[in-house]
This record gives sequence, structure tokens and C-alpha cells, in this order.
Amino acid sequence: MQRIDAYWRAANYLSVGQIYLLDNPLLTEPLRPEHIKPRLLGHWGTTPGLNFCFAHLNRIIAERDQDMIYIAGPGHGGPAAVAHAWLEGSYSERYPEVSQDAEGMRRLFRQFSFPGGVPSHVAPETPGSVHEGGELGYSLAHAYGAAFDNPDLVVACVVGDGEAETGPLAASWHSNKFLDPRRDGVVLPILHLNGYKIANPTVLARIPEEELVKLMEGYGYRPHLVGPAHQEMARVLDEVFDQIAAYKDGRERRLPMIVLRTPKGWTGPHTVDGVQIEGTWRAHQVPLAQVRENPAHLAMLEEWMRSYRPEELFDAEGRPVPDVLRSLPDRSLRMSASPHANGGEILRPLVLSDFRDHAVEVKAPATQSSEPTRVLGGFLRDVIAANPQSFRLMGPDETASNRLSAVFEATDRAWNAALEPTDEHLAPGGRVMEVLSEHLCQGWLEGYLLTGRHGLFNCYEAFIHIIDAMFNQHAKWLESSKKIPWRRPVASLNYLLSSHVWRQDHNGFSHQDPGFLDVVVNKKADVVRVYLPPDANTLLSVTDHCLRSRDYVNVIVAGKQPVLDLFTLDEAIAHCTRGLGILPWASTDEGREPDVVMACSGDVPTLETLAATAILRERLPELKVRVVNVVDLMRLQQPSEHPHGMSDAEFDALFTTDKPVIFNYHGYPWLIHRLTYRRHGHHHLHVRGYKEEGTTTTPFDMAMLNDIDRYHLVMDVIDRVEGLGAAQAHLRQEMADTRLKARAHTREYGEDLPEIRDWTWA
Amino acid sequence: MQRIDAYWRAANYLSVGQIYLLDNPLLTEPLRPEHIKPRLLGHWGTTPGLNFCFAHLNRIIAERDQDMIYIAGPGHGGPAAVAHAWLEGSYSERYPEVSQDAEGMRRLFRQFSFPGGVPSHVAPETPGSVHEGGELGYSLAHAYGAAFDNPDLVVACVVGDGEAETGPLAASWHSNKFLDPRRDGVVLPILHLNGYKIANPTVLARIPEEELVKLMEGYGYRPHLVGPAHQEMARVLDEVFDQIAAYKDGRERRLPMIVLRTPKGWTGPHTVDGVQIEGTWRAHQVPLAQVRENPAHLAMLEEWMRSYRPEELFDAEGRPVPDVLRSLPDRSLRMSASPHANGGEILRPLVLSDFRDHAVEVKAPATQSSEPTRVLGGFLRDVIAANPQSFRLMGPDETASNRLSAVFEATDRAWNAALEPTDEHLAPGGRVMEVLSEHLCQGWLEGYLLTGRHGLFNCYEAFIHIIDAMFNQHAKWLESSKKIPWRRPVASLNYLLSSHVWRQDHNGFSHQDPGFLDVVVNKKADVVRVYLPPDANTLLSVTDHCLRSRDYVNVIVAGKQPVLDLFTLDEAIAHCTRGLGILPWASTDEGREPDVVMACSGDVPTLETLAATAILRERLPELKVRVVNVVDLMRLQQPSEHPHGMSDAEFDALFTTDKPVIFNYHGYPWLIHRLTYRRHGHHHLHVRGYKEEGTTTTPFDMAMLNDIDRYHLVMDVIDRVEGLGAAQAHLRQEMADTRLKARAHTREYGEDLPEIRDWTWA
Repeated sequence: MQRIDAYWRAANYLSVGQIYLLDNPLLTEPLRPEHIKPRLLGHWGTTPGLNFCFAHLNRIIAERDQDMIYIAGPGHGGPAAVAHAWLEGSYSERYPEVSQDAEGMRRLFRQFSFPGGVPSHVAPETPGSVHEGGELGYSLAHAYGAAFDNPDLVVACVVGDGEAETGPLAASWHSNKFLDPRRDGVVLPILHLNGYKIANPTVLARIPEEELVKLMEGYGYRPHLVGPAHQEMARVLDEVFDQIAAYKDGRERRLPMIVLRTPKGWTGPHTVDGVQIEGTWRAHQVPLAQVRENPAHLAMLEEWMRSYRPEELFDAEGRPVPDVLRSLPDRSLRMSASPHANGGEILRPLVLSDFRDHAVEVKAPATQSSEPTRVLGGFLRDVIAANPQSFRLMGPDETASNRLSAVFEATDRAWNAALEPTDEHLAPGGRVMEVLSEHLCQGWLEGYLLTGRHGLFNCYEAFIHIIDAMFNQHAKWLESSKKIPWRRPVASLNYLLSSHVWRQDHNGFSHQDPGFLDVVVNKKADVVRVYLPPDANTLLSVTDHCLRSRDYVNVIVAGKQPVLDLFTLDEAIAHCTRGLGILPWASTDEGREPDVVMACSGDVPTLETLAATAILRERLPELKVRVVNVVDLMRLQQPSEHPHGMSDAEFDALFTTDKPVIFNYHGYPWLIHRLTYRRHGHHHLHVRGYKEEGTTTTPFDMAMLNDIDRYHLVMDVIDRVEGLGAAQAHLRQEMADTRLKARAHTREYGEDLPEIRDWTWA
Repeated sequence: MQRIDAYWRAANYLSVGQIYLLDNPLLTEPLRPEHIKPRLLGHWGTTPGLNFCFAHLNRIIAERDQDMIYIAGPGHGGPAAVAHAWLEGSYSERYPEVSQDAEGMRRLFRQFSFPGGVPSHVAPETPGSVHEGGELGYSLAHAYGAAFDNPDLVVACVVGDGEAETGPLAASWHSNKFLDPRRDGVVLPILHLNGYKIANPTVLARIPEEELVKLMEGYGYRPHLVGPAHQEMARVLDEVFDQIAAYKDGRERRLPMIVLRTPKGWTGPHTVDGVQIEGTWRAHQVPLAQVRENPAHLAMLEEWMRSYRPEELFDAEGRPVPDVLRSLPDRSLRMSASPHANGGEILRPLVLSDFRDHAVEVKAPATQSSEPTRVLGGFLRDVIAANPQSFRLMGPDETASNRLSAVFEATDRAWNAALEPTDEHLAPGGRVMEVLSEHLCQGWLEGYLLTGRHGLFNCYEAFIHIIDAMFNQHAKWLESSKKIPWRRPVASLNYLLSSHVWRQDHNGFSHQDPGFLDVVVNKKADVVRVYLPPDANTLLSVTDHCLRSRDYVNVIVAGKQPVLDLFTLDEAIAHCTRGLGILPWASTDEGREPDVVMACSGDVPTLETLAATAILRERLPELKVRVVNVVDLMRLQQPSEHPHGMSDAEFDALFTTDKPVIFNYHGYPWLIHRLTYRRHGHHHLHVRGYKEEGTTTTPFDMAMLNDIDRYHLVMDVIDRVEGLGAAQAHLRQEMADTRLKARAHTREYGEDLPEIRDWTWA
């Protein structure tokens, strides 16, 4: 117990040092103002509690040879994780200049929250972490994601009582219903009640203890209450790990969890300038704010740091003394060096069967239909079968709705709650994770990927916005990780967005929103990729590519409803490899300069463009039309903006520099302008897309509401191609009349005209 | 009880009719295929349960003269809400063509989920609703928002067991800690366990009942379990409303809640084609899918509909018989006609004191500093004091951090949990709502606004992305509402985004994200407004304007750190009224055509632009520089795209058509291109902004990382203004060197150079 306390004091000392000191790390001389950082940036409040948990968990790891990682929900207590890694030696292994001695300690202190140094929060730079401590709410979902398919792992997850108020965290407690004791590891939640967030008490610290216990029992856990005392924590941890063993071998249904109640800012200054700090929200950031200017504060800081008795903890060279190090686990089990927390180190490539086996046979383009996601389902089934411990398919109860049901030929939905006779495909260990929470799907998958596994998240397009913020944070994690040499590449985060804006006609306006792509392209070009395959074979090719990639966020938008098959498999592969290209069979320019370019991206816009082209071919046979389909949206950007960006020469060759381009796009039209505004021909670009018109109506009526329909496209061509306006006024009027007729039919009969619905190129 | 059952059968009959029938509403003849809709779009599964609750709550309303509204979490059970409104007569009042007779019933059936008709979900079109049934998770937060400051109201909120798995809903249960029994109304949650979502069982239906009860007790409620039986529901409701009375007068601390367990698709076909439907996930949408094609299904539908004995429920003219209507409450208490659910009807303008009283005195522009949000805090304090029952300030524990603390001179934070002696400004009935959940802040505020009150949501800029999806849904609600004549305008949803990207230098990369604006501008121009006031007085003026507006979403981005005061109050009002304008004192073009336009939007970019202009003035005195500041971002768009958009003539006069424009923007630079790509001078526009570079560093280093700093702007001017490149190569080099020096200083000393940090125009 003394060793644990020594370790804890050492970690606390190092934490305070990081927040305050530029120099004099061992307090070998009295503190002077110039030893103090000019900007005091850090969060002390949560830190001693995090250190307390580290110290005690280390004993368990050492005594039980337990494989464990640590997720710090209150990750703004970054100093704790850094201190821990330094004490374990792994910090110096990753960053040799921050050695485990006085000079290294000086650098450790100086770099923290300092320009050119390390972030104030737990971040990719922090060894042993898979969880950024910025946006709160995801620690427990990340922890479960890390535990899935790691049967010997315990993921200790400290949940702050502030974070516990967030929605995603509140939902995450129920993740235990998706855990398989045999095939998965275990999550040990430690709810840390220090009572306060930034400027307020926390809800869970202020409800009756009886209610808190019931809440945790209601979530399906066995709660253990612990106060701020070593003996108590040690005793409870022994009990808890015995219960975990019982859970693992089926003697116990419920997982244990710990409620740890400590003062906020524990062991820090109790009162400053007559105001209580320790045990209040005032301890959240720096308890002493005027250290450089106020000699009394400087003295308090020195007294505070000396209260940890550094002379007992570090030798004259600044190295931790044996008593501090003795409670550490074996090198191979150090949490700060766990390969699970640098997942790329243990990542194995997916075993991918040949997606060509699932190809749709296409005899002639655009003459037959397939449901792209249904075709993809067969491929995903094989991926699941071939990777029974390293691939998961996430979805908020939409996997069947998105027509990926073939996966259930190879697996089940993960489910560890009660079963009924009418249930289908529910079992512990199922590879499909379905819960009606996009937050959980995303959080689980992030945790799974960052610990070295693979996955895909299928979701209704509109509702993926629910995890915009989580996507942002994951993209930022990847952006940062790429700059850190020891962070090895992890599998990409793959989204399949189906049930998209153009075919949510039955669910209506609330389900119609293609704006996630606009959020995605704000992130750095070297981590984001967007694909809009227009048919089944291109979807197969794109998905295979995404599943092989590393360190990206790939977004695939593909419909579940029947769409025309446009490409044979070989053509699809070639088309997707180029990312965009001319559809020669639909074009009438025959290699010459066209009069108009009909560009399209997305399955429904492509269909309407083709149908418009067919009308033009029949009615304006002299008009030279070029049809260009875009699968890889990032190809449109400048090569200086995105690695997939094509040169101006390529762009000009495809789109011309002076001919009208009628671009029919899946999402909000402005995105195409944003991607192409520097192109020579941009002034001639006219983009159609979703302009926020929608309701419960038929598919073609949805297209008409937003002017992406075939008839309107023909009108656009007449309006834009020089000389056609006057000459083809009658055709333009005919198109306008045809639209009115189509709408009238829809309103009368409740369905689209058969000749529109069943249109093919033939 | 028989009357309740009759009402319930009538509602169920009307619900089935909406899903299936085009004609023959009263089944006066045998059903034929042509009576059936060609596309069967609707959700039966949840509907009978919703109808059951309506029927029973009506008895309570009638017996107790209880003011009540109804929120249907499973809003895809839209037929229930519509049936209810039709039976209460309010549907026909809102839509006279859908009369309360056979012809009206025919129209009611036909229009549902039909082109040109009404959405399949509960939506703005549905009388009595303040909650769209599309994206799940927000019903309970909306319910609490509606209950705040409505002391006599009970908000009955049916929570689906699917929705209950979402994060926002899981967090919402704790809203009871923010309710004041004296000043607020009451929420009655009815957790409807029908056991299934789209294709899966639900978690809460499959955990042991003991755990479910503990969970609800842990959330602080008194749960009442009810099965599918009238007597039981009636008995429990009597008990529950007695307990609500006890809660209201302080005899009881906890609110009651109901767990209602029924089969999914209750009273629908039990088995179809040998497969069980009722009581399984297969009842989610339409239990009989082949009614037009399959005579057996057609017969089952008729049998199903006749099982409700319509001949007992409706007279020969299709009017509900007295026995059905007798359980209805008094006209003035009908839930489907509640003015609370059409908040604009009861909205009163805010009492706004003169924001001029809070103005900062500005003797000379850019020579002194204020903290804009701190100044705003004084104005908000007065707003709160003057509107003690109709204005709330929401924030995820960031109100003090965002420096709005002056509000605590007039009010407290709402808090109805335990208190400690060290607490400050916590009390039931406080006007400031702080919980660490952006979802709750947003959901409460939406419910509060839609029931006719006012508010403002202050949030860290980066984390407002957490509610992207909720913003989308609220904007869609407003977009739809504006087309519905009987929906009266409600107060705008106002965001104040502070602690923004440029001054999260201490929290680092995870806290740096200005992309919410990109999400916002995707919504329809007639509901979104974006303001970037550059100083304290413009922030006051903009906020006053937003608080007076209706039916918009207003986004204000403003810093909390000291920024230079640029405008006197009168100038600020004039500048904000125009939305953008030249800063003559900073410009050197003196009314002539400038050589370069330095445009800026946002406080930090404006500061850097001014500092760059000062360098240019000194070093290139001959150069004619025009400084344009943009407050109202939507002014940049074409008038055809946004009502605030300015004409090309205005734009050209400000920005020229051929001179370089160096636009220093707060957010991702592409947005400015997107807003201006059609302008004549667009090819000469060079936008600087946040390009996803960030970490924990100093403010000026953040600016340099993203090239928005003064020195880089000078370099941009040299690069873009014809003739300067060669002539001023030395100045360009000097600027580049100065940047390196600034960075080196920062890395050495941990703070910015004083001449940069303390720069003013003087």
C-alpha cells in the first residue's frame, strides 16, 4: 500500500510540475517566478483521481498478469496519462529526448500545453491512449469497442461525472448487453464522482446514493462504492477482479463497476486567498493562478509540490526510486505501452475474398436493375465469414432495412439479453452490432478500429449527422496520428450511407438530408475520401478498395433500391480506379468536342441524367452530348487541395473549358461549386442537386421537386447550349408540360408513371 | 371503460384506414383492390399503443380539467396523432376539406403518406404536435422544454423503446433534476415497451423487469408497470395523477412514470402467411403488404378493419357516434388543439431593455479592448430580469466560461438536486439551464420555443456540432411550418457560439472546429441567419436583433477574449443594419477605386486584417487599401439565393470586379467561395481561414498555423497586387522572417511577443 501511495504521489508531483514548471523540476532550489510558465494551461481537478486509478490498477496488473488498457474519460486530465507513461518508461521510449531523469523531467514539464509541445489533453501524442480527451461522452463506447474480440483484455474506463451527463455516455452503459463473455474482453467502468464540472456540481454526485446504486444496477452492473482511501480501493479492486473472473466463466451475469468518490482537486491547495478550492468546482483548472506575479501563490505551489515529498520519490538524477517503480507491472503489460492502444501495431489485413465473385453480369448497360446494397451484402457476408474475430458491421437497426441481410447467412446480431422464440439471428458474439444509437455504433467502431481491427458502419444517410461531431474528432485523431511516427496506420473508418435522400420518399422530409458529405470535406484532404458508386458493380469495387485502406475516413453513398446496372465488373473496376469517366455508350460526342457535358454523381442523379440523354439523343440527334460519371468526388478538386485531385489538363479534357456542364449531383449542389471553383470551365458549370425540398411522395416527384429530373435536365440543356433556346422553345415547353403531367398522375394515383418508373436505356 | 374502448377502436380503425385505403372508408361495400393505395407506406406497429394512451389520457383531462399536451416519441406512428385530431374535430378545423364525415374520412385516408398529402410521421402539419417523428431521441427533452414555466401543464410523453436506446433520450431522463415543481409543469413519461424496433428486439424490453424498475428509480422516478388492459391503465393513471398533484404541492419528491407493455402491432393481424406478425418486429410497418395483389391479404385487411366494429363507431354519414365522442375533453382542453402546441399563438414579445445602455464607449476605433460576451452578459441579465417566465439561457456548463456571468446577478442556474454550502447560484426556477449535454440544451430549448417562449443557447463553437442533426430537424420543422397557414411564427432559435476556434489555443485541436456554419447554410435561406460581429457593440446590436426575430435559426459567433472595440454604438447599429461595410478609418482608398480590398469576417480575422492594414499603411503608403468587414454572412450571397443577399451592383461597388480581395474569414475558407462563386470579382477573391491546423499553442501561433496572421496577409497583398511582387520582394521576405521570429519567440517563451499581443491601431 505504501508503494501504491508512493507511485500516486510521484504521479501527482509530475502532474503539478507539467501544469506549472518550466524549470527546476526537482525543486533543487526554491521556486522562482522564472521557473513558472507564463500561461498556466491545464486541468488539475480530475488529475489526482486519474492517478489514483492508475496506481491501483497497476497493482492488479502486476499481481494477476492482467492484460489491461486505460481509457481516461476526463481526458483533459492529460498530465495524469503523461505522468504515468513517463513513470512506466514508455514515454521515454517513444520520445527519447524526454528521458527518465532530471533533464527529461524538465522537458516533460516544459512541453506540456506549451507551443511546440504536447496538447493539454490526452491525445494521439499520449502513449497508451486510444481516446482523445476533448469532446466528452465517448469513453465508455470506446472502451467497449476496444474490448470486443479481445477475450483476455480488461479495459479500465474512468468516466467523469461531467461526461456522465452526456447522451452518448448515458446510452453507453447498456453496451453490456452486446458483450460476449467468452469471445470478448471486459470493461470495468470507474465512475469518478469528484462532484463538479467546469462551474457546476454534477447530477450523479448530487442524487441520493440509493438512486445512484439503483441506476447502475438498472444498467445491469454490480456497483461498488469507494471513497478516497487506498485500503478501500485495493480491497474493492480485488473483489471486482474476482467478479470479472466469475463473469468470464459464466458464474456471474453482471459486470462489476466502481463508483469512486473523491474531492475534486484532491491533495491540491485546500484554500487560496480565503476561498475553498479543493473539493469544489474551482479546482477544475489551475488552483493557483497568479504564481508568477504573487509570491504567496508561488510559496503555496512550492509547499504543494513538496507535500508529495519528491525527495523520497526521485533520486538525485531525477530517476524514480525503486519503491515507486516496484508496483509497476511487467514491461509487456504496461498500460502505457499496450499494443492495443497503438492498434496499427497489431493490425492484420482483412482476409478478403474476391469481390468479383459477387459481380452482377451486365450484358448491355442500363438495361437491367440490381439493388446495389443487396449485392454488396453477399460480399460482406464473405468478409465476415473469413474474418470471424476482426471485422464488425455496425448499424442502428438498419442492416436489414439497408438490404444487407445476406450477412445473416454467416453470422448473427450481437445480443446478450433475453431471447424469445420468434427471434432471428440474435446471439452473443454476432458480428453485426445493432443498437438504435448512431453514437454507440460510431463509438464502438472507433474503439474497435483504434485497437487494430476492421469494420463498416451502415446508416441511413440523413441520420449520420447524429455523429457529425464524433466523425470530426475521429478525423482529427487521424490527422494528428499521421504526424506521430510511432502511431502505426489503422484500418479506415468506413461508412456506407444508404436509404439516401432520393429514396426516403416514404419517410419524408425528416429523413432527407445529404449534408454529411459537406461536413466530411472540411477535414484534411489526407484523411477523407467520398465515393458515390452509381450501380452494384461499382459499389463492390469501391467497398473492396475502402476495406483495404488505412487511416482514412471513407464515405460511400449507395442506394438500396433497384438501379440500372451500368458497368460490367471490369468496366466498374476501371471506372472506380479512374474515379470518374465518360460513359461512351451514352455519349454522342464520339471523341469530338461536345456541345454539352452531362455530368452526374450518385445513383439517382445518374439515372436521371441517362434518361435525359436518351431524350436528347432522340429529339436533338445532332447535339453532341458527353456523359461523365463521377464516383470519387475528391477527383474534382485541385491536386494541390486533395491527393486524388486531377490536374487542370485532365479536368479540361473531360469537362471542356467553355461548354456548358449540367452537373446532376446527389447532395447539396454548392459542394460541387466549392470543389471546382478554381477550374477553367467553372463559369459554365450548372449544378443540380438537393435543394431542401421534400416530403412523403413518389421517387420521381422527389426528383422533380428538386429539379434533378430528366425533363428538367433537358430544359437546362436547351437553356444553356448556345442557339438552342430559341430553336427548341417547343421542346422546352413539351418537357415542362410533361413534368406537369407526371406530377398530376402522381397526385391522382399515388405512384409514378410506369414509363418513368421502368425506364431503361434499351 | 366501454367509451374508452370505443374511442380506441375508432382511432385504430382510422389509423388502419390511413395506411391502406384510397376509398370505401366506411367499408360500405366489400373491399376491392382499387380501394387500396398502390404504395403502402406507414408504421402500424406503434400506432395502437399511441391510440391507447390518447384514449386514456382524454379521460383524465375530462375528469380533472387537466391542461395537457401529448408528445409521441414514436412519431412514425403518425396515423395515431392524425386520427386523434380528426376525432377531436380539430383536424377539420385546421383543414376544413377533411371534414368529420364520410367524405372527410375518405380524404383523411387518401392524403396520408400520399403525394400532395401529409407526411407519414407526426410533423408540423399534424395539429397538436410540437415534435417531429423522424429522427429519434428528442421526445423527452422536448417534453421538459414544453413543461418549463407552464406550471399548470402536464406533458404526456410516449417514449418508444427503440428511441430509448439513443443517447439523447437516455440523458433526458435526468431532466427531472432541473424542474421546479412550483414554477414548472410536469412531464409524464410513458415508456412504451412494444418490444421491437425495425428488425430487432429492444434492450429495455429484454432486461429483467427488476433491472428496468431500478433503472427508472435510479433516474429518480416512481415507475408504474402497466400491461395491455384498459382497467389497469385507468387505475394506474388515477394513481399517477394523484402523485403528480402530490409532487406539485411538495408532498412527493419524485415524479411518476409509466412503463406500458403491449404487443407490437396490437390488434392487428396475428399471423400472415403462417408467420407471426403481431407481437414481433414484423409488425413495424405494414403487416399486410400484398393487399392489392393477393385476395387473401385483402380479405384479412377487411376482417381486421371490421374487427373494430366500425358500424358501432361511426354513423351512416361517417360521423363519430356520441359514445365515441363522449370521452373527449372539453373543446378548450383538446390536446390536438392546444395552443401550447402552436406556440406562436400564445407567444408574447420579449420585454427588451435598451441594449444601448450596455454599449462600450469608443473614443477612437481599435485603440481599446473589451470582452464582447462579457459586455453581452449585462444585456442578457436585463433580458432575464424583465422576462422572468418566458426566457431561458441554455449552456452545457459553459455560461461562466463564456463570460456571461453577469446573468447571475439576476438569476440562478436551475437546480433541483442536493445543495452544498460551497454552491453558488443554484436554485429551482433559475433561468440558466446548465447540464453537460448539448443534446439536452438543444432539446429543452426547442420544446420551450415551440410552445411559445424565448431563449438563447450559448456553447463552445466546436462542440455545437454535437447537435448538428437536431439543428437540421428543427430547421426542417421551421421550413415546413412556414408553409402551414395555421402555424404561427415562433421565436427564433438563437445560438451564441463563443470560445471559438481561434481562442481555443489552450484546449487544442479537439476544441477547434468552425464547421457548424457550413451545416447551417445548407438549410433553406428563409430560415437561417449567420452573424459574426467583430466587437462588443456589434455583438449587442446583433443579439438584440436576433432576440426580436421569428422563425429563424440565428447563429452568432463571438469571442470571449478581449478584442479591440471598432465601432461606437451608433456605428455598430448602422454597420449591423447594413450587414457589412467599409471601415473608412482603416482604409486608404479615400473613396476611390482601391488597389486591394482587405475583407474580414469574425473578430480574430478582423484584428489580423487591421494589423496587416497598419503595416501596409506604413510600409506601402501609396497603396490604396479598402477594408471591408462582414457581419451578416448571408449578405454575400445572391439575392436570388438568400433574402439578405445583396445585388451584384452593391457587391461590385464594395469589392470591385477586378481588384484582388484578400478575405480573412473566421471559418473554413471554402464557405466564402461557395457564397460568392457567382460574383463578377470571384476570380480575384483569395480567402484565408481555418484550414484544420491547430494544437495547444498561443493565439498568434494559431493564426500563423493557418496563415490568417497579419504578416501573411501582407505577403498575400504583395503576391496578388499587380506589380508588387517584384518591387516588394524585400518586404515580403521581411514579413516571412518576422513570422519565423514570432514563432521562435513563442516556442522559447511560451507566449506571444508583446507587440503582437498588445497591438492596437493607435
